[in-house]
Amino acid sequence: MNRDFSNVSMAVIRRLPKYHRYLKDLLEKEVYRISSRELSKLIGFTASQIRQDLNCFGGFGQQGYGYNVEELYQEIGKILGLNKTYTTVIIGAGNLGQAIANYPSFIKYGFKLMGLFDINPKLIGMKIRDIDILDLDYLEEYISKNKVEIGIICTPKEVAQEVAERLADSNVKGIWNFAPVDIKVPKEIIVENVHLSESLFILSYLLNEKENLQG
Amino acid sequence: MNRDFSNVSMAVIRRLPKYHRYLKDLLEKEVYRISSRELSKLIGFTASQIRQDLNCFGGFGQQGYGYNVEELYQEIGKILGLNKTYTTVIIGAGNLGQAIANYPSFIKYGFKLMGLFDINPKLIGMKIRDIDILDLDYLEEYISKNKVEIGIICTPKEVAQEVAERLADSNVKGIWNFAPVDIKVPKEIIVENVHLSESLFILSYLLNEKENLQG
Repeated sequence: MNRDFSNVSMAVIRRLPKYHRYLKDLLEKEVYRISSRELSKLIGFTASQIRQDLNCFGGFGQQGYGYNVEELYQEIGKILGLNKTYTTVIIGAGNLGQAIANYPSFIKYGFKLMGLFDINPKLIGMKIRDIDILDLDYLEEYISKNKVEIGIICTPKEVAQEVAERLADSNVKGIWNFAPVDIKVPKEIIVENVHLSESLFILSYLLNEKENLQG
Repeated sequence: MNRDFSNVSMAVIRRLPKYHRYLKDLLEKEVYRISSRELSKLIGFTASQIRQDLNCFGGFGQQGYGYNVEELYQEIGKILGLNKTYTTVIIGAGNLGQAIANYPSFIKYGFKLMGLFDINPKLIGMKIRDIDILDLDYLEEYISKNKVEIGIICTPKEVAQEVAERLADSNVKGIWNFAPVDIKVPKEIIVENVHLSESLFILSYLLNEKENLQG
């Protein structure tokens, strides 16, 4: 199977985690084969969309026979890079940082948390899941010694850009940013911003829209 | 201005929170007028995309004169329903629930947190931002007495569906769900799921893809 998917649109790629999640649920329910039509009912994409999406990656499924759930799950996992492990640190060990440290998917899919960092003396020295909370002053030294690949920013908005630059200067490969600001780093560093407010505002839009329609 | 946007595509709507965030940043920097070309450089959408998006909502901007930042910010806020207030409760008062309770956008944009609920006796009776953590047994009673509109699920995956059904039976209007499962409730209830793993898996995809291309 072709392993270069750089010509597949990001819109398709962004749907893959959802396929991955539903396929995992199917496996847990011991469903080993599924048609695009049945998958469509579960996942809410049209059957034709599903066939089109999965065709981007080559030979999944057979006409009239459906998809092999286990195989599809494994292959999508590989496409998403989930067959590898990644070393990570969390910067900001408050509630959000601790919640991420304990997030089940994070633990399950090969994201190895090496350390948490904070500036709060009350937190420094504590442990989360047996992992030390360290003084932010040692960030650069720690990253270079421990070959950390991903930095996860769970700090307040005001310091997120500065932390991002320190991570970039330490040569991390990727940043997962939860601070409500779009951080800017050199383009060779992959950044994935999580803006919780975007999702909250869509909820308020939909609530409001519904009220307007009902008059 | 037309206030029924039900014919505007959700793809456009989902971009509005990002416009809103950038316009707010501009106002903080005392920038009061901006062209679609300048906005494009900041936000990363093409200028033509920006003009097209904002045209969906009627008469923003004047040819050759740019957008009035304050007006555009206010109008997008209204479209997103951010000029109203919403009463909310959080179910699950662990790290994630506490992080959401303290999330700045949540506090700032009219989402009034009435109470947090948990089953853990160590948490029940505590306060977060002066708001009580209550026993989950009283959820239904509390929602009906306090006219709660939005339930925010920060529980483990295993109990999220059950909590969602209790919220639905209590007639909340919307659910903001952080549990890593797609909850199912009657379709008159608006649900916005936040799947942190989707964003994490996109990060690992991009890291992996980059390595493949370099390899």
